[in-house]
Amino acid sequence: MRFGRKIYESVEGYTPGEQPREPGIIKLNTNENPYPPSPRVIEALQALTADRARRYPDPLASALCRACAGVYNLPGEDWLVAGNGMDELLALALRAFVDPGDTVLALYPTYTLYEVLCQIHDCRLQYIELNDEWLPPESFYKEKGRLCFLTRPNAPTGVAMPRADVERFCAQFPGIVVIDEAYVDFCDDHCMDFPQRFDNVIVMRTFSKSYSLAGMRIGIAAAQPPLIREFMKIKDSYNMNAWSQAAALAAVEDQAYMRSCAAKVRATRERLREALIGLGFRVPPAQTNFLLARWEGSPSASAIFEKLRREHRILVRYFNYRRLDTALRITIGTDEECDALVDALSAILR
Amino acid sequence: MRFGRKIYESVEGYTPGEQPREPGIIKLNTNENPYPPSPRVIEALQALTADRARRYPDPLASALCRACAGVYNLPGEDWLVAGNGMDELLALALRAFVDPGDTVLALYPTYTLYEVLCQIHDCRLQYIELNDEWLPPESFYKEKGRLCFLTRPNAPTGVAMPRADVERFCAQFPGIVVIDEAYVDFCDDHCMDFPQRFDNVIVMRTFSKSYSLAGMRIGIAAAQPPLIREFMKIKDSYNMNAWSQAAALAAVEDQAYMRSCAAKVRATRERLREALIGLGFRVPPAQTNFLLARWEGSPSASAIFEKLRREHRILVRYFNYRRLDTALRITIGTDEECDALVDALSAILR
Repeated sequence: MRFGRKIYESVEGYTPGEQPREPGIIKLNTNENPYPPSPRVIEALQALTADRARRYPDPLASALCRACAGVYNLPGEDWLVAGNGMDELLALALRAFVDPGDTVLALYPTYTLYEVLCQIHDCRLQYIELNDEWLPPESFYKEKGRLCFLTRPNAPTGVAMPRADVERFCAQFPGIVVIDEAYVDFCDDHCMDFPQRFDNVIVMRTFSKSYSLAGMRIGIAAAQPPLIREFMKIKDSYNMNAWSQAAALAAVEDQAYMRSCAAKVRATRERLREALIGLGFRVPPAQTNFLLARWEGSPSASAIFEKLRREHRILVRYFNYRRLDTALRITIGTDEECDALVDALSAILR
Repeated sequence: MRFGRKIYESVEGYTPGEQPREPGIIKLNTNENPYPPSPRVIEALQALTADRARRYPDPLASALCRACAGVYNLPGEDWLVAGNGMDELLALALRAFVDPGDTVLALYPTYTLYEVLCQIHDCRLQYIELNDEWLPPESFYKEKGRLCFLTRPNAPTGVAMPRADVERFCAQFPGIVVIDEAYVDFCDDHCMDFPQRFDNVIVMRTFSKSYSLAGMRIGIAAAQPPLIREFMKIKDSYNMNAWSQAAALAAVEDQAYMRSCAAKVRATRERLREALIGLGFRVPPAQTNFLLARWEGSPSASAIFEKLRREHRILVRYFNYRRLDTALRITIGTDEECDALVDALSAILR
């Protein structure tokens, strides 16, 4: 590319999970919530007038940040920044706190976007291998770096490392710790109290999973105000449109609805996990809205993935990456969808 | 800031125009369209289901890009990339095509965001001074650089340099030329045919002005496919939410509505320009939905700005920058709003 930058010659970008358009597919591949967003979200969107479309949105998403400060028990809205999806906030964190060439830490395996973002920002991603229980090794707690992406619960393993271990890591790490809590509403506990105790911690949430709002692109980052101000310097002024702001506000104000959907997903998850173990999969205890089902038998995991798709019209996620190529990542759907998956797997493995 | 990057110590970010919340203010300060978006936009938004919120949006905004390719007379959707507002696309252009430390060109005065974006990207912005008719000097056509932001029609001057001069510049410039056509729907002509003739030209449009969709954050960039692919490598996968995509598609499919609103704005603009000249302002011929009204008399332009706001509840834009501090930038409102402004100015200057 004549005009492109040399550093991007080998960059391919992130490959999102497939979004099939044909109807009738059971879609358990991109960790969307099987239940619709709160009825209050739809009401709030329907209530928006043409005038809200015509005018610029609030550049700070103040009403949303105030509501989140309340729900997250933070001192004020200046502890929060809203983003056009959590992906935007992850990219901004790198640009705000890491110079090109510097070292960024992440555990392996984890969310593959971090690697793409580090390539794009021209910094060095150093992976620390998780052990066979998908937990960090002891050496992790002595690592140095400019920033660490810590996904808790982790994707695509589903495992949440103990809160006390996160605390231990944050207390000694010399750089910024981004705790990616994308899946935390399906978990027993969270780390949203850490920003008040550590000046180097940023906790991020997405509304794509537990609030069923993947289509609206809503992310939130919480940290001490000096860190938030660094985001504000470099983010696009109007990074979140009026519709997303209204949807997010309505969603966060209906905690009861979100909690009830998350509880249903968790109950289905436990049922599905038992069924998968019954079929011979190794499935670590998960705190997410998906399971990582490991399969070293025959047919191979990739063959099972293909058969599910072709013969049963069920889409799950298969990663052709080291340590993940003998596993399927399965999003928790409704009970009916998960029953259909178990039936299909039984037929394939019979 | 202990964790921040040195290069951002002096960065303050972009200051968007004021968005007052109190009712009854005549708002002529941020170049919003005084008319609502097409009724088809509102219908399209109302028709979106909860399922569209729950699922990830199309990462490529394909339906929108296809529709734009048709309207812009481009060979295909791979000539286009959609953004979360044109601001996102401007920032991506720098990151895709300019290495930190390199030189970027812009005319002065122009959209102040370019300067902020160059600071954030740690590259060098070289301004070329426009002459007193707000047109580029002869030396401009020999300048070198990695990228040039060329706003046509220009903001905040309102002046469109001749198309032939843009062509002359693009033909000799060794880097990327970003032709920022944010205001082009209020102009007599455009440069959307340039991408097919120049492999270094990116033409950008926003839906914030002519389509009355500032609140939805919609921008489009058109260029040859190799340039578009560089954007795709580094943009957030899901950078445009489902609601914005639906609104943009409905808007671009209703060209007749947009044209009729733009024609009303242009007619009001010519009336207002004559009235301002009658009051003693120097107002260059504008091809935008705003006018730059120069005033070197007494009271000062900044005093007029203050009086309009305090005594008449009319908000215009005052820039305390070199060569602009003796001027007001006035967004074209409805005929009634502009009449109220002229009455207020008459009272102030009496």
